[in-house]
Amino acid sequence: MQDKPKNLPATQPGGEPLKPYTEAVVERRATTQFLPDEVPEETLNAILQLGAQAPSGYNLQPWRFIVVRGEENRKKLQAVAYNQPKVGQAPVVVIALGMKEEWKRTAEEVFKDGAARGAGNPDTWRQYMEGALGFLSQMPMDVWVNRHTMIAFTTLMYAAEAYGFDTAPMEGFDAAAVKREFGLPDEAEVVALLAIGRAKPPDKVYPGRFPLERIVFSERYGEAWGGE
Amino acid sequence: MQDKPKNLPATQPGGEPLKPYTEAVVERRATTQFLPDEVPEETLNAILQLGAQAPSGYNLQPWRFIVVRGEENRKKLQAVAYNQPKVGQAPVVVIALGMKEEWKRTAEEVFKDGAARGAGNPDTWRQYMEGALGFLSQMPMDVWVNRHTMIAFTTLMYAAEAYGFDTAPMEGFDAAAVKREFGLPDEAEVVALLAIGRAKPPDKVYPGRFPLERIVFSERYGEAWGGE
Repeated sequence: MQDKPKNLPATQPGGEPLKPYTEAVVERRATTQFLPDEVPEETLNAILQLGAQAPSGYNLQPWRFIVVRGEENRKKLQAVAYNQPKVGQAPVVVIALGMKEEWKRTAEEVFKDGAARGAGNPDTWRQYMEGALGFLSQMPMDVWVNRHTMIAFTTLMYAAEAYGFDTAPMEGFDAAAVKREFGLPDEAEVVALLAIGRAKPPDKVYPGRFPLERIVFSERYGEAWGGE
Repeated sequence: MQDKPKNLPATQPGGEPLKPYTEAVVERRATTQFLPDEVPEETLNAILQLGAQAPSGYNLQPWRFIVVRGEENRKKLQAVAYNQPKVGQAPVVVIALGMKEEWKRTAEEVFKDGAARGAGNPDTWRQYMEGALGFLSQMPMDVWVNRHTMIAFTTLMYAAEAYGFDTAPMEGFDAAAVKREFGLPDEAEVVALLAIGRAKPPDKVYPGRFPLERIVFSERYGEAWGGE
C-alpha cells in the first residue's frame, strides 16, 4: 500500500486558487452540456488520488474506477447510458464500480500492512481481521459496496469541483450492458458514472432543497430540527 | 423547497480559515476518541446545510439525519452500536437514514417546485416525473437509498472537517435496534453513523491506500492506469 499523496497541485490548472469546499458544494450543479476542453493529466491524477483517500470499513477500499477518455469508448458508454449526450461530450467519464469479492482476497494485505504501519496491532491483526470478515459476511454485499463506493465517488466529485472543473453524477445506465462493453467481471456492481470537464454555459438552475426542518431530526425520528 | 444557504460561516469557530478540501481529504482520519468540546450550533447548522446540498437523482433527496446530542441518547446509541466508546464520547453523532418510500410522496412537490424555479419545464414536469418514477421502480430500493444517502453523508463529513472538526464514520451498529430505539419507521434504512467533535490526540495512524494502478483502469476493466 501507498503513503499519502504528495505533490497534489495547490491550484487550479490556470493558477487560480482551489475553490473553497463550501463553494464547491453550494455552487456545484449537475452539468448537462460539456465543452470539449480536456482535463490536464496532472489534475486528473490529483482528483483520482483524492478519491482514493476516502475512508472505508476496515480500509478495505472495495471501489474501482474506469477512466473513459477515448472518443469511441465514450460513445460506447453513451449508448449504454440511455444515450445521454453529456456522456459522449465530456472529455472524461469515470465508471465507478464496487467489487463484491475482491476485498476478500486483499483483506490480509490490508490488515497486515495497516498493522505494520502502526494502524493496527502487529500481534493481533489476524484475529481482528477474522472478526471483521465475520461482521461483513452478514452484510448484503450489493448494499455494502454501493455504500462504500459512493464515499469515494463523492470525494472524487468534489475534488474535480475544487480544481475548478464541472461534473455530472449519473445513475442512468444499463448496468448489464456496461459490464459487457467494458469487460467487467461478474462480481462488479456498476454504481454510478461521473462526467468531468468544463460546462457549456448556462449552468443548470438550482432546483431548491428541502429545508433542514424536513430532513433533520433532533435526538429522535420525528422531532424536527430547530436550526435553519 | 428552499434557496441556497446564505450566511454559512466563512471561518472555523475560532476564526481560522476553513481547511482547503485537499487537506480535509488527505488529513482526515477516523477518530477513535473524542474530547467533550461541543460543536457550536452555528457550525453544526452549516455542516447540515452543506450536507443537504448534495446531489440526488431527480433531486429527490431520500436522506434524513437524526442529530443525537443528549448524553442519555448517545449512550443509548452506543449500546446499539456494539458499545463503541466514541459514540458515547462524541458531542454529536448523526444517524444517517435512507427513506425507501417517502420520496414517492414528495416527488410531485420536488418536480413541480423545480420546474417553477426554472430547473424543469413547467408544462411537461408531470410527464418527466412519470418517466422518472418508472425508472426508479426498477431499482432495488435498499441499494438506491444507501447510494444516495452516502452522497449527503460524505458531503456532511467533509463539511465538518473543513470547519476544523474531527469525524468518525461508522457502519458498526445493529440496524434493527437503532430503528427501535430512535423511533424509525419501517421504510427507513439505517445507512451509517457519523460522530463529529474534537479528537483526543494522537490521531489514528494512516493505514495506507492502494496505489492508483490497482484501483483505476484506463478505458476498460483490467487496463491499469498509468498515472501515479
